Amino acid sequence: MALALDKLGLMAFLAEQFPQVANDFAIEEVAERSIRVRLIVTDKHLRPGGTVSGPSTFALADVAVYLGPKALTVTTNCSIDFMRKPKAATDLICECRILKLGRVLAVGDCLIFSDGMAEPVAHATLTYSIPPVG
Amino acid sequence: MALALDKLGLMAFLAEQFPQVANDFAIEEVAERSIRVRLIVTDKHLRPGGTVSGPSTFALADVAVYLGPKALTVTTNCSIDFMRKPKAATDLICECRILKLGRVLAVGDCLIFSDGMAEPVAHATLTYSIPPVG
Amino acid sequence: MALALDKLGLMAFLAEQFPQVANDFAIEEVAERSIRVRLIVTDKHLRPGGTVSGPSTFALADVAVYLGPKALTVTTNCSIDFMRKPKAATDLICECRILKLGRVLAVGDCLIFSDGMAEPVAHATLTYSIPPVG
Amino acid sequence: MALALDKLGLMAFLAEQFPQVANDFAIEEVAERSIRVRLIVTDKHLRPGGTVSGPSTFALADVAVYLGPKALTVTTNCSIDFMRKPKAATDLICECRILKLGRVLAVGDCLIFSDGMAEPVAHATLTYSIPPVG
Repeated sequence: MALALDKLGLMAFLAEQFPQVANDFAIEEVAERSIRVRLIVTDKHLRPGGTVSGPSTFALADVAVYLGPKALTVTTNCSIDFMRKPKAATDLICECRILKLGRVLAVGDCLIFSDGMAEPVAHATLTYSIPPVG
Repeated sequence: MALALDKLGLMAFLAEQFPQVANDFAIEEVAERSIRVRLIVTDKHLRPGGTVSGPSTFALADVAVYLGPKALTVTTNCSIDFMRKPKAATDLICECRILKLGRVLAVGDCLIFSDGMAEPVAHATLTYSIPPVG
Repeated sequence: MALALDKLGLMAFLAEQFPQVANDFAIEEVAERSIRVRLIVTDKHLRPGGTVSGPSTFALADVAVYLGPKALTVTTNCSIDFMRKPKAATDLICECRILKLGRVLAVGDCLIFSDGMAEPVAHATLTYSIPPVG
Repeated sequence: MALALDKLGLMAFLAEQFPQVANDFAIEEVAERSIRVRLIVTDKHLRPGGTVSGPSTFALADVAVYLGPKALTVTTNCSIDFMRKPKAATDLICECRILKLGRVLAVGDCLIFSDGMAEPVAHATLTYSIPPVG
């Protein structure tokens, strides 16, 4: 399976698949086996005190791995470690590598940073089930 | 650490801690080591086709374990398995058991059902770090 | 896919599949969607101080889910929480439920107890890829 | 907390902490936030057919993260993805990075390779609880 390398194509795909949240994300870089996606943090992503919420962090990793090889329609597992408190009201950046892109399963590995912080705030591993080509 | 057994007290606590999302949840039952929480599914939780999104499912498990022993301020790990497609545009119900409530770590185990389905749609295990009492 | 309900048949299957470790395990109970397996703890499973090792605990959960629906040849994911120190030099008991037995993926959920302790020492969730029937 | 950078010191520490398995491992490289450890595969690590077993793979990741910052006495969580079949009867190499080394929790990320294969056979994330200094 080839990776989709075109940033604009992926943005269009995202808008089509996740119309309610597509504007929350910006695709910053796409390479053969990796992708970098930004969560544009607004009030709806925040907990009191300005911390970006866990579900928003999860959503970022989920979108990044989903977009990496494009059209991985079903997340089957996600394991996420929240390691540091993100900066208040600050975008998150997800650096995602595709570790495996098999016939039936794909695995992506994500490091998530608070924009401007050197150490990651979270680490996620996601598994996707790849639908059979009909 | 004692569990908070009062449904109304927990609803008030939820409204205070998560004002932006408190109305999405209903606490259905609270027992000594378990809690049942409903996600009242609306458009914002749905993917095209009416499937409840992964981050919404994660948010439900996160809130349920958080509320179980009350005031578990930091989720440190979540592992979630998405096992079946939920019914379109249908509430999710989270049955959560607290497996461990230690001095520094708590672990909660969640089965998540699409309202009216017998088999679980997802299973999540969450770990929380318990802040030291000052 | 039907579950194999015969204890002796499973013991024979285990001896055939895992000849090097089959004697470490005893199948205590088999039901339609669950199984209870004991790890007969000996020196090789222990860390200094008599604690049962993490890999031994993992092996117990792995065997239990593997045997539950029989012939799940490939573990694709395991998430395990170690929650309490097991009793020194004491058998572990694994209570395993099969949460999903699909066409391509199976998910099992395990609570692991130190024989005689009421609270679980570990909790594991395992995902298996089911090989296509040729 | 400083990392122990001395290979020989770590081998001695390993022999003292895990006398029953220390000879199964070789520490190949130690840097400030990372370590590479080899599992010297022998018959006891193999399944019929020569595949290195899941618990052996887990044990390798567990030792690598444990040794990285030295003296992380309690593994609290491990999530491991088995992605490819390892080569028969071949050593495994674990490349481990310490993602977080906090006051109470540490997180390590491991890629595990079959010696000589370019793509990883497994990926593991482990969390350790750090005992308070008395």
